[in-house]
Amino acid sequence: MTDRINIGVIGAGRIGRLHAENLAWHIPEANLVAIADVVVQAAQKCAATLGIPAAYSDYRAILDDDKIDAVAICSSTDTHSQIIEEAAKAGKHIFCEKPIDHDLQRIDRALGAVEQSGVKLQIGFNRRFDPSFRRARELVAEGKIGQPHVLRITSRDPAPPPVEYIKVSGGIFLDMTIHDFDMARFVMGGEVEEVYAIGAVLVDPRIGEAGDLDTILVTLRYANGALGSIDNSRQAVYGYDQRVEVFGSAGNVAVANHTPDNAIYSNAGGVHSALPLYFFLERYTAAYIAEMREFIACVLEDKVPSVTGVDGRIPVVMGLAAWKSYRERRPVKLSEIG
Amino acid sequence: MTDRINIGVIGAGRIGRLHAENLAWHIPEANLVAIADVVVQAAQKCAATLGIPAAYSDYRAILDDDKIDAVAICSSTDTHSQIIEEAAKAGKHIFCEKPIDHDLQRIDRALGAVEQSGVKLQIGFNRRFDPSFRRARELVAEGKIGQPHVLRITSRDPAPPPVEYIKVSGGIFLDMTIHDFDMARFVMGGEVEEVYAIGAVLVDPRIGEAGDLDTILVTLRYANGALGSIDNSRQAVYGYDQRVEVFGSAGNVAVANHTPDNAIYSNAGGVHSALPLYFFLERYTAAYIAEMREFIACVLEDKVPSVTGVDGRIPVVMGLAAWKSYRERRPVKLSEIG
Amino acid sequence: MTDRINIGVIGAGRIGRLHAENLAWHIPEANLVAIADVVVQAAQKCAATLGIPAAYSDYRAILDDDKIDAVAICSSTDTHSQIIEEAAKAGKHIFCEKPIDHDLQRIDRALGAVEQSGVKLQIGFNRRFDPSFRRARELVAEGKIGQPHVLRITSRDPAPPPVEYIKVSGGIFLDMTIHDFDMARFVMGGEVEEVYAIGAVLVDPRIGEAGDLDTILVTLRYANGALGSIDNSRQAVYGYDQRVEVFGSAGNVAVANHTPDNAIYSNAGGVHSALPLYFFLERYTAAYIAEMREFIACVLEDKVPSVTGVDGRIPVVMGLAAWKSYRERRPVKLSEIG
Amino acid sequence: MTDRINIGVIGAGRIGRLHAENLAWHIPEANLVAIADVVVQAAQKCAATLGIPAAYSDYRAILDDDKIDAVAICSSTDTHSQIIEEAAKAGKHIFCEKPIDHDLQRIDRALGAVEQSGVKLQIGFNRRFDPSFRRARELVAEGKIGQPHVLRITSRDPAPPPVEYIKVSGGIFLDMTIHDFDMARFVMGGEVEEVYAIGAVLVDPRIGEAGDLDTILVTLRYANGALGSIDNSRQAVYGYDQRVEVFGSAGNVAVANHTPDNAIYSNAGGVHSALPLYFFLERYTAAYIAEMREFIACVLEDKVPSVTGVDGRIPVVMGLAAWKSYRERRPVKLSEIG
Repeated sequence: MTDRINIGVIGAGRIGRLHAENLAWHIPEANLVAIADVVVQAAQKCAATLGIPAAYSDYRAILDDDKIDAVAICSSTDTHSQIIEEAAKAGKHIFCEKPIDHDLQRIDRALGAVEQSGVKLQIGFNRRFDPSFRRARELVAEGKIGQPHVLRITSRDPAPPPVEYIKVSGGIFLDMTIHDFDMARFVMGGEVEEVYAIGAVLVDPRIGEAGDLDTILVTLRYANGALGSIDNSRQAVYGYDQRVEVFGSAGNVAVANHTPDNAIYSNAGGVHSALPLYFFLERYTAAYIAEMREFIACVLEDKVPSVTGVDGRIPVVMGLAAWKSYRERRPVKLSEIG
Repeated sequence: MTDRINIGVIGAGRIGRLHAENLAWHIPEANLVAIADVVVQAAQKCAATLGIPAAYSDYRAILDDDKIDAVAICSSTDTHSQIIEEAAKAGKHIFCEKPIDHDLQRIDRALGAVEQSGVKLQIGFNRRFDPSFRRARELVAEGKIGQPHVLRITSRDPAPPPVEYIKVSGGIFLDMTIHDFDMARFVMGGEVEEVYAIGAVLVDPRIGEAGDLDTILVTLRYANGALGSIDNSRQAVYGYDQRVEVFGSAGNVAVANHTPDNAIYSNAGGVHSALPLYFFLERYTAAYIAEMREFIACVLEDKVPSVTGVDGRIPVVMGLAAWKSYRERRPVKLSEIG
Repeated sequence: MTDRINIGVIGAGRIGRLHAENLAWHIPEANLVAIADVVVQAAQKCAATLGIPAAYSDYRAILDDDKIDAVAICSSTDTHSQIIEEAAKAGKHIFCEKPIDHDLQRIDRALGAVEQSGVKLQIGFNRRFDPSFRRARELVAEGKIGQPHVLRITSRDPAPPPVEYIKVSGGIFLDMTIHDFDMARFVMGGEVEEVYAIGAVLVDPRIGEAGDLDTILVTLRYANGALGSIDNSRQAVYGYDQRVEVFGSAGNVAVANHTPDNAIYSNAGGVHSALPLYFFLERYTAAYIAEMREFIACVLEDKVPSVTGVDGRIPVVMGLAAWKSYRERRPVKLSEIG
Repeated sequence: MTDRINIGVIGAGRIGRLHAENLAWHIPEANLVAIADVVVQAAQKCAATLGIPAAYSDYRAILDDDKIDAVAICSSTDTHSQIIEEAAKAGKHIFCEKPIDHDLQRIDRALGAVEQSGVKLQIGFNRRFDPSFRRARELVAEGKIGQPHVLRITSRDPAPPPVEYIKVSGGIFLDMTIHDFDMARFVMGGEVEEVYAIGAVLVDPRIGEAGDLDTILVTLRYANGALGSIDNSRQAVYGYDQRVEVFGSAGNVAVANHTPDNAIYSNAGGVHSALPLYFFLERYTAAYIAEMREFIACVLEDKVPSVTGVDGRIPVVMGLAAWKSYRERRPVKLSEIG
C-alpha cells in the first residue's frame, strides 16, 4: 500500500478551507489534489493559496477522478447525504462534516450506501479530538471517576449566526446542541434514552421570528440511569464558553475553558484574566488537525474511524427528540423518533 | 429600646449547638439566656460549655419567660410549625431552621400566626449569607450580568445521611434540593413557574428502599423565561461540592468551591490542590454567623428580616412539585401544588 | 493540674485586643482575667466589651497577681524584652508578640531570664499557624517535594504604615521582612547562612526621608546549599499579597493568596475575581486563634511551644544582617551579626 | 518589491528543523529554498521531508546563492558570529539563534559587519513572542501596572541537558538564564545595572564536575531603581516551569504556566490538573512561528526587527556579569564587563 493518500475537498467555505489548510500543511500523509465548490472562484482561490493542483465547480469531477482515494465533504448540510451516497458508490473514503442530514431517511440511505461499498466514513465531530475533552473521556474510560452519574455541559457561542442560517440550519438543537449531544455520548460512554428540552428567545427576537430558540436547556436520561444536563446560548458576551463535566461514584472531571494567554493582572479593582478563545476556529484548532489526521491514518492503515456513521446519526435523533420535547412540553424517548 | 436582646435556643442538636455557640461568642448584641431540648442532658451540656444560665427539657419554659425576646428554633423539622405558632402567640421573635414544615397547611397556619402577632420571622437559609453566593447575588442585582438567562447549581454532599433520617426527611427534594431551590430564587431574583425532575438511585440501594433518590436533576422554568438546572448527589467522594452559576445577557458569574488551604503541590504526577471544605459546618461557618447577626439586628432595629416566611414556604412548594414531577414523569407547575 | 489557665493581656492596642478577643471567645481553656495598657481607658474599654474582670494601667499588676498563670505581651516592641524578663521572674508563662527586641543583647537577657525561670515562651509568628503555609511546611517535612532547593516569598502590604511608626520600627527588614525571615526558616526547615539585600524607595519619598526603604529584595543562602529570595513592598494596590513557594528535587509547593469570596465574574472585558483579603487581620484570623490555642495547650499540657525564643531571635539577626548587607552593598553572613 | 522571500536555513539540528518546518508550513511569505548542515545527511533528510529544493553540507553554498534573500542561522553557537559576518557581507538578511556568541569581541565584530552591510538582523529570543509574556509586556507598556518596581522570574527545565553540552554551553548563566535576562529587559522595559548571583549544584554532581551550576538565583538592580529576581533549576520533575511576574505601583501581572489540557480531576485524594507543557518545543510552538513571521515581515516590508543585535548582546553581558558575581561573591555592575 502507498504511504500517502490523494484527497479532494468538497466545499471551499470556511470549514472547507480550514480542512484544506490542515491537509496541506499539517498532514504529510495526505496529498491534497483537488478542491470543488459551486462558487468555483472560491475553489480556485483556495487552490492558489495552498498549491492544490485542481479546482472544480462540480464535486463530481473529484468523484470521477480515479487517482483520488478520499474526499472531505464540507459543502452545505443539505448536500451531505447525497454526496456521501455518490462518493461511496465511487469508492472514495469519506470524511463528512456534521450533521449528515436532518432527515433520518436520507441519513439511513447514505449510511446504507457506505456500508454496501465498504468505504470508510468519519463524521466531523471535532470536539472529540480536543485534548481537554479527550482527557475527560480517558479519565471516565479508565474508571477514574467510577460509575458516571451526572453529565453537565455548558456550551455557548460568542454571537448568534445570521438569521438566514438559522432558517435552514434545523434550529438550535440540530445546529448547535448536536455537538453537545455527541459530547454527551462520548464522555459518558453510554446512550441516552430520553430527553426533555425547554427553551426561550432571550437574545434576539428575530431568532424567535425565524422559528428558533436562542437559549435552551436539555435534560438527559441515560439508559443506565445516569442523568445529564446541557445548556446552550447563542450569545455569551465573554466569548466561546465550552465546558463539560462528568461526576461519578469515585470523582469528578471538569473541563475549563481555554484562553489565548495565561497572564493574570491584579489592580485595585480586582484580579483579571483572559477571556476564553473567541470561537471554534481558535478553540478547536488542534482538534480539527487531529480528527483529519485520524481519518487519513484510518484510510492508510485500514482501520475503522472512531467517529462512525452511527455516531453521526444518533445526535440527529437526539436533536429531533429535543424539538419534539420542546413542542410537546414533555419528556421524549429517542425510540419515539426512530 | 435596649441594645441587647435576650434569646433562647430550642433544640440542642448539631445545628442548635452551632447557633448557640455563634450567639454566645460572635454576637455581642445577643444575650443567650436559655436552651431547651427534649433530651435535657443535651441542653445542660451545651449550657455548661457556653455559660447559658438556663437549660430546660420543655421549650415552653422559654416561651413562658417574659424576659426572653426571641427564640431560635433548631428542633426536629416536624416540630417547627407548632413551635412557630406558639412562639408567635407568646410574642417572641423567631429564627427558624429550614424547612418550616413539609405540609403547606401547617406552614400557612404558622405563617398566619406570625402575621397576626407581628413578631419577626427569619428562616435559616444560611447560604444566602455566604460571601461567595452573596457576591453572585450582588453582581446579578447590580445588573452586572445583564438580564439573567440561565441558572446552574451543582450541590453534592460528601456522604449520605443515615437512612433513618431519609425516612422522615421528606426525601431529597425536601431535605437537600430545598437549599438549592432557595438559592435558585435568591441569586436570580425571580420566581420559578415550573419544574421538571428526574432522579435515580446510584449511590446506595438502601436509599431507594427507603423510597428516596440519591442523584437528581431538576430543570426550572422561571416566570420571566429564564431557565435553570440543579443537580444533587448525596455522595461526592471529593467532599462538599457547592457551586452556583448565573449566566446573563451581559456576563456570567460562577461561584467555585472553598478550600481549607491554598497550597498548590506539583510533582511528577500532576498539579494537586486541596479538596473543598468537607461539609456544611466548615463551608458555611461565616454564613451561619452572618444570618444570626442579621436576625438579631432586625429585632434590635425593628427591620424585616431578608429571609421571610414566604421565602421558607416557596422552596417547600418547589420540593413538592419536584416529587410530583418525578413521579408523574412530566413538568409540573408550582401553581398545581398550591 | 487545672483544665483552664488564667491569663492576662498586656497591651490593649490593635493586636492586644485581637488576642484578648480570641482568648475570650475562641479558647475555652483560657480564662482571660486581666488586661493592662498604659492608656488605661483602652484597657478598660476592652475589658468592658469582653467581660474581663480587671483592667490596669500598669502591667505589673498582672505580674503581681498570683492567680494569673500566663501573660500575652502585646505592648510596644521596645517594652517586650523588659516585660519578658519581669514576667519570667514572676513565674508567668509568656506569649510575646514579635519581635522580641531589635537589640540582641536585650533579647539574650530576656531569653536568659526565661531559661532560668523555666517558664514557657512562645513568640507570635502567627503565619506559622496559617493553614496554607502549614500545609506547605507539612509537604516539605514529609519529603513530598524531596530535598528543598529554592524558596520564594512575595510579601506585600496593601499600604505603608505611618511614617511615625517607621521611624521606630527598626525599618522594613525588622518590621516587615522579619515575618518572611521566620517563614523562610519554617517552610524550608533549615537555617540561612548568608543574606544579600537590595532595596529602594519607590512608593513614598517620606519613607526614604525616615531612613527606611519601601521595596526590598533579599537573597538567602542556606547552610545546606539551598537558595532563597524574598521580595517586599510596603504598598500593593491590589491588597495583601502573601505568597510562599518551595521548590525541591521531587516537586514544588506554592501558596496562593486567600480571597474573601470565590465568585468569578466574566463579562466582555475579561474574567474577574476577588482581590486578596485586605490585610493581616483578615488574612490571618484563623492563624491568630491557632497560635494562641497552641500556647494555652502548651501551658496546660506542659509542652514546649513550637515557636521558641530562639525562633524569635534568629529573624532579628537576619534583619540586622539585611540592613548591614544593604548598607555595605555585599553579602553578609549571619555569623557576622552574632 | 516581491511578495515572497527566498530563505535558507543553516543547521539541521533540532532547532534548525523546527524553523525549517515553520518556514515551510506556516509562513506563506517565505520560500524555503535551501538547507545546510555539516552533517549533510541531516540536511538532506530535512529537505526531503519538507520539499526543500537544495541541501548542502557547506553553508557557504547558501550565502553564494544570489537568489537567496535571507538566512536563518541555527548551527552550533560557536559558529554564529562567524556566519553572521559572512552572511552580512553576502548581503543576506539574518535571523540568528541566541546566543550570538559568548565572546563580546566576536559579537561586536559580527554586529559591526551587520551594521556596515545594512542587512536586517533578528536574534531568536522566541519567548518575546509568546502570547502570555507578550500580554505581560503590553500591560506594563500601557502603564496598567504603573511604574514597575519588582520583577520575578522562575524558569526551570524539566531535565538537565547532557553534560557534554554543558561543557561547551558557557554554563547555566549563558545557556539558560540568558533567556530570562532577555525577558527581564523585555517585560520591564528597562536596563539592568547590576547583578548578584548565587548558585549551587543540587541536581547532579556531574554538572558541578563540569564546572557548572544547576540551581541559581540572580538578583537584578535596574538603572531606574527597580529590583528583580530570577531563579533557575536544570530539573523540575513536574515539567517546564516558566513564570514571569511584574509588580508595580498600580498593579501586578503574573504569567502562569501553560498546560496541554484544562481537565480538572477531583477524587478522594485531592483536586488534580495537568502538568505544564513538557518542554520548550511544546511550550513555545506559537512563539517560534510568530518570531519567524516577524522576521519575514521585516524583510518584506523593510522594517527593523524588534529583537536587535544589541538585544542579543546585552544578555551575554549579563551572563558574564553573573558568572563574575558568582565567582567573586559580590554584586557586579554590567559596566565592569563591557
